[in-house]
Amino acid sequence: MNRFLDLADFPREQVKDLLGLASRLQQHPQPQALAGKVLGLLFLNPSLRTLASFQSAVMRLGGTAVVITPGQGTWQMETRVGAVMNGAAAEHVREAVPVLASYCDAIGIRMFAEGRDLNADLAETGFNMMANLCDKPLVNMESAASHPCQALADWHTLDELRVPERGKFVLSWANHPRALPLAVPASTVHMAAMRGMEVVVLRPDGFALPEQVMNKARQAAQASGGTIHETSDRRAALNGAHVLYAKEWGSPLHYGDAEAETRLRAPLADWCVNDSWFKTTREDCHFMHCLPVRRNVAVADEVLDGSRSVVIREAFNRMVVQMAVLYRLLRG
Amino acid sequence: MNRFLDLADFPREQVKDLLGLASRLQQHPQPQALAGKVLGLLFLNPSLRTLASFQSAVMRLGGTAVVITPGQGTWQMETRVGAVMNGAAAEHVREAVPVLASYCDAIGIRMFAEGRDLNADLAETGFNMMANLCDKPLVNMESAASHPCQALADWHTLDELRVPERGKFVLSWANHPRALPLAVPASTVHMAAMRGMEVVVLRPDGFALPEQVMNKARQAAQASGGTIHETSDRRAALNGAHVLYAKEWGSPLHYGDAEAETRLRAPLADWCVNDSWFKTTREDCHFMHCLPVRRNVAVADEVLDGSRSVVIREAFNRMVVQMAVLYRLLRG
Amino acid sequence: MNRFLDLADFPREQVKDLLGLASRLQQHPQPQALAGKVLGLLFLNPSLRTLASFQSAVMRLGGTAVVITPGQGTWQMETRVGAVMNGAAAEHVREAVPVLASYCDAIGIRMFAEGRDLNADLAETGFNMMANLCDKPLVNMESAASHPCQALADWHTLDELRVPERGKFVLSWANHPRALPLAVPASTVHMAAMRGMEVVVLRPDGFALPEQVMNKARQAAQASGGTIHETSDRRAALNGAHVLYAKEWGSPLHYGDAEAETRLRAPLADWCVNDSWFKTTREDCHFMHCLPVRRNVAVADEVLDGSRSVVIREAFNRMVVQMAVLYRLLRG
Repeated sequence: MNRFLDLADFPREQVKDLLGLASRLQQHPQPQALAGKVLGLLFLNPSLRTLASFQSAVMRLGGTAVVITPGQGTWQMETRVGAVMNGAAAEHVREAVPVLASYCDAIGIRMFAEGRDLNADLAETGFNMMANLCDKPLVNMESAASHPCQALADWHTLDELRVPERGKFVLSWANHPRALPLAVPASTVHMAAMRGMEVVVLRPDGFALPEQVMNKARQAAQASGGTIHETSDRRAALNGAHVLYAKEWGSPLHYGDAEAETRLRAPLADWCVNDSWFKTTREDCHFMHCLPVRRNVAVADEVLDGSRSVVIREAFNRMVVQMAVLYRLLRG
Repeated sequence: MNRFLDLADFPREQVKDLLGLASRLQQHPQPQALAGKVLGLLFLNPSLRTLASFQSAVMRLGGTAVVITPGQGTWQMETRVGAVMNGAAAEHVREAVPVLASYCDAIGIRMFAEGRDLNADLAETGFNMMANLCDKPLVNMESAASHPCQALADWHTLDELRVPERGKFVLSWANHPRALPLAVPASTVHMAAMRGMEVVVLRPDGFALPEQVMNKARQAAQASGGTIHETSDRRAALNGAHVLYAKEWGSPLHYGDAEAETRLRAPLADWCVNDSWFKTTREDCHFMHCLPVRRNVAVADEVLDGSRSVVIREAFNRMVVQMAVLYRLLRG
Repeated sequence: MNRFLDLADFPREQVKDLLGLASRLQQHPQPQALAGKVLGLLFLNPSLRTLASFQSAVMRLGGTAVVITPGQGTWQMETRVGAVMNGAAAEHVREAVPVLASYCDAIGIRMFAEGRDLNADLAETGFNMMANLCDKPLVNMESAASHPCQALADWHTLDELRVPERGKFVLSWANHPRALPLAVPASTVHMAAMRGMEVVVLRPDGFALPEQVMNKARQAAQASGGTIHETSDRRAALNGAHVLYAKEWGSPLHYGDAEAETRLRAPLADWCVNDSWFKTTREDCHFMHCLPVRRNVAVADEVLDGSRSVVIREAFNRMVVQMAVLYRLLRG
């Protein structure tokens, strides 16, 4: 394995093998496995879990990390090909990425969606450009349309919780002050489908996931024996759910149009998940969210602080599965 | 020892035992004592000594550190319980703290006083909320009313300088462009009292330390055989002093009222410690300050650059005593 | 070797010995050579290569690093001697530097030119003040007039490329939105002269390097058997060149005068290096630049993306030679 960019790049058995490695490393730590290895982490966007868990993961395997955050001690960076660089950015990623890669044994890159052109973001034009500049093992730390480490951690969490592979998994849209990228909903729906679950995407009108995202998930469902449906009917969606996974995302219909987005969201304040959402779920229904989460906007305190919530476990599992990813990238 | 939050939480003998461990680790380094351990450092406020000395301390014991600074590469954080998070903060500390703790073997948190409600700050409502979110060994890297690592380093410095346990210790208010928190003066006066010293708090009218702070110090003095007095008479205070410890703090009378504070400070520019302050001290009187210090506002160049100053030694001792604290927290 | 501040501080043989050590460490890694050592890195200015390569270098030798960036999680710092600190800066470097040094086994400092007084900058008044505060092994990570790690890396790159020691080395001025410091051009011209090359400084009228810079390079050329000339005739300069090294710098004639600088630059947009510059060079002429570079302002995409460019190799060699520098500073 030389790149970890999207779960869809791997057959289901290889993903399960990674999860098995993650469990083994958790039970039998290998504190010298990556001794002498240097991991470079390039963050074009903010982070807490990814920033801390990748450092902790590589250090627990005996390696070290270098963090680069443009604009925070490092030059602001240009990403546009062919740009005439007479503005604020002093360095182009065409230099920054290969230079950082040259100092390191593996690289992680975070580069969110630009949020202007839906098709360009879904095609990962930005991240692919970055990936093409890097000749070292590479991890996607969240791109425009994919967050594979989150998806892998969530899969591991579902396994730990013994949620049945055929269980009902509801990904629900949640409220937020503004449009957020599609990376996590796209990766989550694909992961649950790949795991073989009965996946329901619950969202208000205007927030249907793009056809490309749904098709990719449908293909995964077909291969694994899972199913996938989309609805705006909250009651039907949640009925009998094993898992409610909440996530905020922007309307694909008004991509990059902040005003239209605001109008569309105005009446949707009740898409803040609270205890009443669990009336018709299974009694032991788990609540999941990738974090960060805006309390009492996307999810009510009572849910996050209640016993259904496994959000801290999901975050912890980021470190757990990333140890396996780094192990495979650097040791094979 | 599972938490290091305030010297008052420990009997005097345990503090002296920590200082003894610090000396032993200095003389006989244990570069593998914390091998494989990860220390998480969460800074809600700026830092130099704490930032560098905690990293250096854990690394000199064979461990590693992850630094998280909200707003600097990491999401801005909400700290208010029950907040409706529709503003700038994308993440609540109720998630951030347990998540970071889950990646680490011990955590340090810096969270200064909010500076609005004196009683809330003295009650450590903010830091206690953070501490309650953390299920790992925890160090206070400066809270609203306590800076125990500074106090421990200063005690170690006094011992190194062979300042008598019954010596005269003057904590003097010093000028500053604006109100600063009470954590260091509160911890310093308590530390000197706990050490058994003849403690004098010298400050202009309007800057008397809060009764809670003085009472805590008085209790420590009583137990150790020390004494504690407060005065605005500079000459009397400094007479025969073994140590002059300067510190800036805001008026407890006008807590959170920047205008009143400015008026009160206007005539106090001569509370900038210079050589003349040492005319009636002991000849070998030491000058101490926790740093950072505003030169020629709080303390004159001639003092900081003179032979009395031990401020660099105090700062160095931060690393020395923190190695002992981390050792006890992580190895028992 | 206790300080690495400028190549001119060392005889040519000692520089070549450092380069030899760099090669040996590359071929025969010593992953434990600096085990237990802590390197402090103080950045008063932004960085990518220096920030990442020093961390990677010390970690590949088994050591660790602490990074301090004033204003980014750390207090803003005052550098003026005698300042009355009632402004934004909360800490003076007179405390910050010795404190950081006390936690570390060696220190690197980056402090660019102030850009107001040419003679003060050429005399390194700022960096020398910092160096005098530091009692530990010290590396110059770029000062007002010197960037010795870049110069050493470039020398190593020239050796790797088997560019003849008597080859023709053209340092050319390049366009930039504003005046940049003289550290890299000064170090580059001196390095090439010290290596024994036929050095030509190509620059528009008004951008002649200061006499002090040229004299220092001339002395190095005299000792090594090299030569050094300055011209504004691009065709003559580039004719038969083995290396074209581009660099942006401000006019010494209008030092600190942004308006005059802008006027002087207005007609110089064609000082953007493109493929046409290589018509009369040697066919295998290499293109060098220290990075960061503003694409299509200083250097055209076609050059940076073409086969002549060795800019990524130069950057990689920063890590390679710094391993040798750190080894000498910390192991002798």
